[in-house]
Amino acid sequence: MTEHTVTFDIAKQPVRVPTGTLLSEAAHLAGVDIGQPCGGQGRCGRCAVQVMQGDVRRRSSLRLSVEDLTQGFALACQSVVEGDVIVSVPPQEKIERRLTTDRTAIEVSVPSDYDPYYAQSVRRTSLQLSLPRMDDQTDDWSRLKTALRQKSGIENISVSLNLLQKLGSILRESNWQVTVITDATIDIEGNRINERLVAIIPDQVPYGDPMYGVAIDIGTTTVTVWLVDLISGKVEGQYSEYNGQISRGEDVISRIIFSSKNGGREELQNRVLDTINQLVGQACKRAKINPPDIIKATVSGNSTMVHLFLGIPASSIRLTPYITTVNQPPIITAETIGLAINPEASVDCLPGVASYVGADISAGVLACKMDETDKLTLFLDVGTNGETVLGSREWLVTCACSAGPAFEGAGVLNGMRATKGAIEECWISGENSAHPFEPTYRVIGSAKPRGMCGSGLISLLAEMFLTGVVDKGGSINLSLSGTNPRIREGEHGPENVVAWGTETENGKDIFINNVDIDNLKRAKAAIYAGFTVLAQSVGVPLEMVEQILIGGSFGKYINVEKAVQIGLLPDMPWDRFKFLGNTSVQGAYLALLDWRNRDRVRDIAAQMTYIELSADNTFYDAFMSAMFLPHTNLDSFPSVAAAVENRTIT
Amino acid sequence: MTEHTVTFDIAKQPVRVPTGTLLSEAAHLAGVDIGQPCGGQGRCGRCAVQVMQGDVRRRSSLRLSVEDLTQGFALACQSVVEGDVIVSVPPQEKIERRLTTDRTAIEVSVPSDYDPYYAQSVRRTSLQLSLPRMDDQTDDWSRLKTALRQKSGIENISVSLNLLQKLGSILRESNWQVTVITDATIDIEGNRINERLVAIIPDQVPYGDPMYGVAIDIGTTTVTVWLVDLISGKVEGQYSEYNGQISRGEDVISRIIFSSKNGGREELQNRVLDTINQLVGQACKRAKINPPDIIKATVSGNSTMVHLFLGIPASSIRLTPYITTVNQPPIITAETIGLAINPEASVDCLPGVASYVGADISAGVLACKMDETDKLTLFLDVGTNGETVLGSREWLVTCACSAGPAFEGAGVLNGMRATKGAIEECWISGENSAHPFEPTYRVIGSAKPRGMCGSGLISLLAEMFLTGVVDKGGSINLSLSGTNPRIREGEHGPENVVAWGTETENGKDIFINNVDIDNLKRAKAAIYAGFTVLAQSVGVPLEMVEQILIGGSFGKYINVEKAVQIGLLPDMPWDRFKFLGNTSVQGAYLALLDWRNRDRVRDIAAQMTYIELSADNTFYDAFMSAMFLPHTNLDSFPSVAAAVENRTIT
Repeated sequence: MTEHTVTFDIAKQPVRVPTGTLLSEAAHLAGVDIGQPCGGQGRCGRCAVQVMQGDVRRRSSLRLSVEDLTQGFALACQSVVEGDVIVSVPPQEKIERRLTTDRTAIEVSVPSDYDPYYAQSVRRTSLQLSLPRMDDQTDDWSRLKTALRQKSGIENISVSLNLLQKLGSILRESNWQVTVITDATIDIEGNRINERLVAIIPDQVPYGDPMYGVAIDIGTTTVTVWLVDLISGKVEGQYSEYNGQISRGEDVISRIIFSSKNGGREELQNRVLDTINQLVGQACKRAKINPPDIIKATVSGNSTMVHLFLGIPASSIRLTPYITTVNQPPIITAETIGLAINPEASVDCLPGVASYVGADISAGVLACKMDETDKLTLFLDVGTNGETVLGSREWLVTCACSAGPAFEGAGVLNGMRATKGAIEECWISGENSAHPFEPTYRVIGSAKPRGMCGSGLISLLAEMFLTGVVDKGGSINLSLSGTNPRIREGEHGPENVVAWGTETENGKDIFINNVDIDNLKRAKAAIYAGFTVLAQSVGVPLEMVEQILIGGSFGKYINVEKAVQIGLLPDMPWDRFKFLGNTSVQGAYLALLDWRNRDRVRDIAAQMTYIELSADNTFYDAFMSAMFLPHTNLDSFPSVAAAVENRTIT
Repeated sequence: MTEHTVTFDIAKQPVRVPTGTLLSEAAHLAGVDIGQPCGGQGRCGRCAVQVMQGDVRRRSSLRLSVEDLTQGFALACQSVVEGDVIVSVPPQEKIERRLTTDRTAIEVSVPSDYDPYYAQSVRRTSLQLSLPRMDDQTDDWSRLKTALRQKSGIENISVSLNLLQKLGSILRESNWQVTVITDATIDIEGNRINERLVAIIPDQVPYGDPMYGVAIDIGTTTVTVWLVDLISGKVEGQYSEYNGQISRGEDVISRIIFSSKNGGREELQNRVLDTINQLVGQACKRAKINPPDIIKATVSGNSTMVHLFLGIPASSIRLTPYITTVNQPPIITAETIGLAINPEASVDCLPGVASYVGADISAGVLACKMDETDKLTLFLDVGTNGETVLGSREWLVTCACSAGPAFEGAGVLNGMRATKGAIEECWISGENSAHPFEPTYRVIGSAKPRGMCGSGLISLLAEMFLTGVVDKGGSINLSLSGTNPRIREGEHGPENVVAWGTETENGKDIFINNVDIDNLKRAKAAIYAGFTVLAQSVGVPLEMVEQILIGGSFGKYINVEKAVQIGLLPDMPWDRFKFLGNTSVQGAYLALLDWRNRDRVRDIAAQMTYIELSADNTFYDAFMSAMFLPHTNLDSFPSVAAAVENRTIT
């Protein structure tokens, strides 16, 4: 096969590749990192590179203008090498941070009844072994087992070869005085079974000394690690970072597509492990401990994230009939996948329910305790996918709808993630004010605005609707353009300028247009339709819901009033809404602490009835009804009806 | 630290090493293999190399003559680099083969009641899974588990991450028609517990098709692998090879010493794994299968061999009070240690009793069924260590004595292993024959003699004693030198020439002298004393022993009459002796086949009472009494007494 030389301007060395190699693959070989937020589907245009010399064959040039093409731009994920080329890689987009910091870290209270001796699967025991003699030739491992049985009643215990290889020297060097850490599965009657040696520590560890575990939430966007002292139950630190997989796809579908490519699955697994291991490293540094001191991990995340974390192919998740390989992964050891904690530590991935209702939702239900309440509860995790659970102690039904990434700023021309420079809230003055339809806004990080994030878009759309700038069908009212020049005909139809170029970072106007609004409507309609169908499926009117619990990091920033006004959330008294933050990591934390919680999350996953919306005609009807602002049926939104009552513009 | 260049004449490239590096370490770095049969203790002299230029510091030059030293010879294991040197490596000794071949392979009969469905821990089940649908979104793993439960009643089953990673594609590619292999622990009531998935095979495997396992015996000298069809129970092939560790020590003590050196443990583990993997490769090639088709392994061997196979430090075995790290190793998977069979296959190392009574003896007891007989039985495994078990169904006592390597040809000037060119049997004509004291002999491989192996030495010594060439104290009767010039004063005292230089391969006389005889006496006395003490310890006269079962490959070649005549074996009717061959691999085979045998070997190991001879004064007395030919007390050897009765020479 013919080989060609590909030279990237920012690479150390040129690489030789055969005809037909994608530029993105060549870049990977050359050690050049080119972001592929759409996972290499040629849809996002962000992997564009400039071919300076030679030529490539472009399979697709979507997202590239004629001018781009003239200048030699090509999508790295869609262009193949057919001869020697020299390629210039534009500066890669940096992900700006708005992650958990000390400011945003939530107060976590340790469950008041936490008793590590009873609740914890991990147990630490200090031992003084009898000394071997000519007339007591018991082997080392039996000697340790005998001491452990006498001290703590542990009868059967298994050991890894790794630990056996170290046992002899640790026992002798510590003069037969050691502390052992064991872990067990605890059956429903509270009996410890499958007890397993996790660590042997030379010398005796004082009672009450901390013993560490981690609760991990693998979000599609953000990975969160909580360092937990399993003795006191306290969260010693909360650490978050963008999931290192983001540059290989911004949503789960893009990730699955990327993972199906040659080497893609291994790359995505390594990327998320790198992210987690970095966070663990930070946590250890701050707590002044070493990663091997962490002897237990509980992991939550959506089904795709859990599959990729475990290196299990996720392709069937994306293909009808949308089947996971495993909803309840086996407990593995950290060594098995290269998680940089104690190699013997158990890594317990919590159970999910289906391809699009994963462990993050089971954990969320655990964290919000809806499986223990008598109140009819609606639990929402709003993100790229809107997962919804309805029910109480008696029963739980769940569904997921693909809301799309509009609330994460994608699919909206001036949309962006909720990072520095994003307009996060917006107000528009009414028709009767001194300056009708004039917006004011708040920007994250008190910077010049660069775009609008989800919460900003929701409040903008709500304000536009309440003031009549947009009608109930979602069209911008161009007739108001005489009143305020912000309302104008743009390149892609009517648009409304939120910030003039004079105010913005890049000097360009920030605006929203009808296409953007349509995407936002689709997102909110999908979520609203989801819980409508859920309620219908069990024959419960939505009004009977006694509390609405909102999880997910996005949820933290939603203004309920605005979300109700656009018809994203049902119109109910505000005191029924509660924002819980990252319920996925909270659930992982609870399961890490107490085997009873771990049992509960298993029961939750087993009991949740999953309703696959794509197999449900009523969903389509509900979705279409919700494609209005706030909804076709205004009776369901009395507070919104009252708010627009005095509006003259219709 | 100063570095020097070491150039080996047979290496591809010189190596740079710091001051103080052993020549043997430098050779290892340079990829040059220098045999160290004594494990690098400087005792055997076989790692001598010639320093052609530069100089080395010799820590020890034992085994090197003044002439050797003048010529620049140095022991690679005892000489350190202090400047640039050029080293010539003499041709390395090749190990000649006399291993299991078709001729020597034993007939193995499958236990008549073998029923794989009941006896085998491994089970194979063909399955047709239901197809996933939008309204049946069961995950792949649960779907498989359900099918397995319905077909074979297996309720709980675990799976490795490795198999989960392959599950989705195998199911889809085989159109949901697969065969699974599971393995379980079987409890004493016959219940399958800890059921575990071992393999998923696309398509359905016909009932009765073979399913492979291996029984492995890791001997200090020889490694044996039996390929077994677990369905029929038949041994499909027997393969043996010298243990690749031999060049790093010929006995267990040398191996332990070598393993305690930097990197030594890893090297020894790799060497024995290489040997086993080669044998498995041969077995697979002959049976036309692939190594992953082997889905179960049972391993036997002495405690040191098992520790080194598992990579567990063995140093404490050598140091008082002689404690193993583990007598009953956990069952591991082949992947854990790099055994080249199915990575998920269980590797079950059988239990040993103590540092010097290992799994090979427990397996031997199983194979010879002494735990099931009412007859008082003496089981002997004669080798470098003489392990002895005495007992019956009711009780078992065991001990080990260090016989030393005399029966393997070491410690005897013209001794050698039982390979081509070794005198394996010897006869000497009596004083009244035409040619008094003239020997005849048989050589292995019908070649010119090169030396004498264990069986040859035993028969030679017996014949010398019966004809009066040697007295009961073991001294050669020089007064006979007039009758036959073979009996003469040699360099190291009196000697007896067995083969004149004109008959031998290298033109030198092959003879035995008083020092050699002393070493042989020590070996036989240790073994005889061992079972004497065992019998005494339980208060049973040795005469009551109803059968003497002899295991070990050496045992196969012993002539009982001769062994009795020198006092190695007790003087009993010949029909009480039975040679069983390699009982260690036979036991491993039985345990591989049937969980009841596996339970038995565990019980055997647990029930054997171990008597540590070095803590026992009676052993010394018994040893001293046995240092005569055949014994101080001739009453115990009536047949020998009768044979020497008519001898005039005393």
